[in-house]
Amino acid sequence: MSDAFSELERAAVYRAIRERRDMRHFSNEPMSAEVLQRLLQAAHQAPSVGLMQPWRFIRIRDVDLRGQVRALVERERLATAKALGGREQEFLRLKVDGLDRCAELLVVALMDQRERHLFGRRTLPEMDLASVACAIQNLWLAARAEGVGVGWVSLFDPDALAELLQMPAGSKAVAILCIGPVDEFYERPMLEQAGWASAAPLSEMLFENHWPTADTPV
Amino acid sequence: MSDAFSELERAAVYRAIRERRDMRHFSNEPMSAEVLQRLLQAAHQAPSVGLMQPWRFIRIRDVDLRGQVRALVERERLATAKALGGREQEFLRLKVDGLDRCAELLVVALMDQRERHLFGRRTLPEMDLASVACAIQNLWLAARAEGVGVGWVSLFDPDALAELLQMPAGSKAVAILCIGPVDEFYERPMLEQAGWASAAPLSEMLFENHWPTADTPV
Repeated sequence: MSDAFSELERAAVYRAIRERRDMRHFSNEPMSAEVLQRLLQAAHQAPSVGLMQPWRFIRIRDVDLRGQVRALVERERLATAKALGGREQEFLRLKVDGLDRCAELLVVALMDQRERHLFGRRTLPEMDLASVACAIQNLWLAARAEGVGVGWVSLFDPDALAELLQMPAGSKAVAILCIGPVDEFYERPMLEQAGWASAAPLSEMLFENHWPTADTPV
Repeated sequence: MSDAFSELERAAVYRAIRERRDMRHFSNEPMSAEVLQRLLQAAHQAPSVGLMQPWRFIRIRDVDLRGQVRALVERERLATAKALGGREQEFLRLKVDGLDRCAELLVVALMDQRERHLFGRRTLPEMDLASVACAIQNLWLAARAEGVGVGWVSLFDPDALAELLQMPAGSKAVAILCIGPVDEFYERPMLEQAGWASAAPLSEMLFENHWPTADTPV
């Protein structure tokens, strides 16, 4: 095929996938506007159900506003800790966001008026969120290739954030992305390194023809 | 940074992002098991909220079962067409799935018992779907680098598919992935080429500090 990837290109794509990390530790250095623009273009090239392009990006530049977003994340961090019960103290020791030192803060939201789009969503309306997640994954991989860290923070009350950012009814924020230079990428997922959770192998998640049952193992 | 990507590696990642397509036309050729395994490993390397790894993959190998899945997609295709009203005939002329000629059929589902995972999901429980979508986007990009097409079909009734695949309560299928060799990748998104929809530029989706209003344009 004339449009085949070379061996080196193929390896680079797999490398970005393998070495991408959900970052919480940033180096407090600035990031060029050109790099940010490339990352956003990568996100915008994502697939979307019925080509609806439901993603909206709000770049938070105002210093006071960033402080308000941080306060909102901190409030949810404490609420989550309490809800975790027995693991409350362990959770509170984790670093769960990078809002303190990341170069850029980007809120990603579902657009309003999504009910107008039916293609591929009649039985699965949540495909709009799936499209937005694909866009964020594009941005994440492109960032890794640029040597830039990205962390997806979902510790916030979406209604409170909507009010803060003057978002219209029907829209919904689904990510606060911390983006920027890092000193180093984690060797393994941070939650594994911190002993919070351990990843299971693919083999446990791969079935054939049907879900396994006690009678019919994988 | 010692772990920086070379210029060529970076370009390869952007190329995969730019040239990935949601494919519906497959060449009816087989695909090696090794390539499929690499694609699944790429998916499995996705980020997941609280490291919950909510993705489950069901490879459909049984020929009769594939036929039943196809029938299920066809039923939803007709239901969607009817629901679209004025665009019914136009929709029916589109090729909306590749189940007829793709080498592999993979159902991707959310696992059951997700309510046990609270981290990053207290206010946004749908982050589990976001993680699964990131996994699919990884697979999609890896497939493009391998020269393999992928199409995400969401035209199905998830309850009917759950029954067909003996899925437990609490799990939910979110994608039927058509995967396999293609004669060529679409130049532009298929829905654009077919005149169904046209993509809007990034600039319309990028705001600063707040959502734009009539009084405060972007």
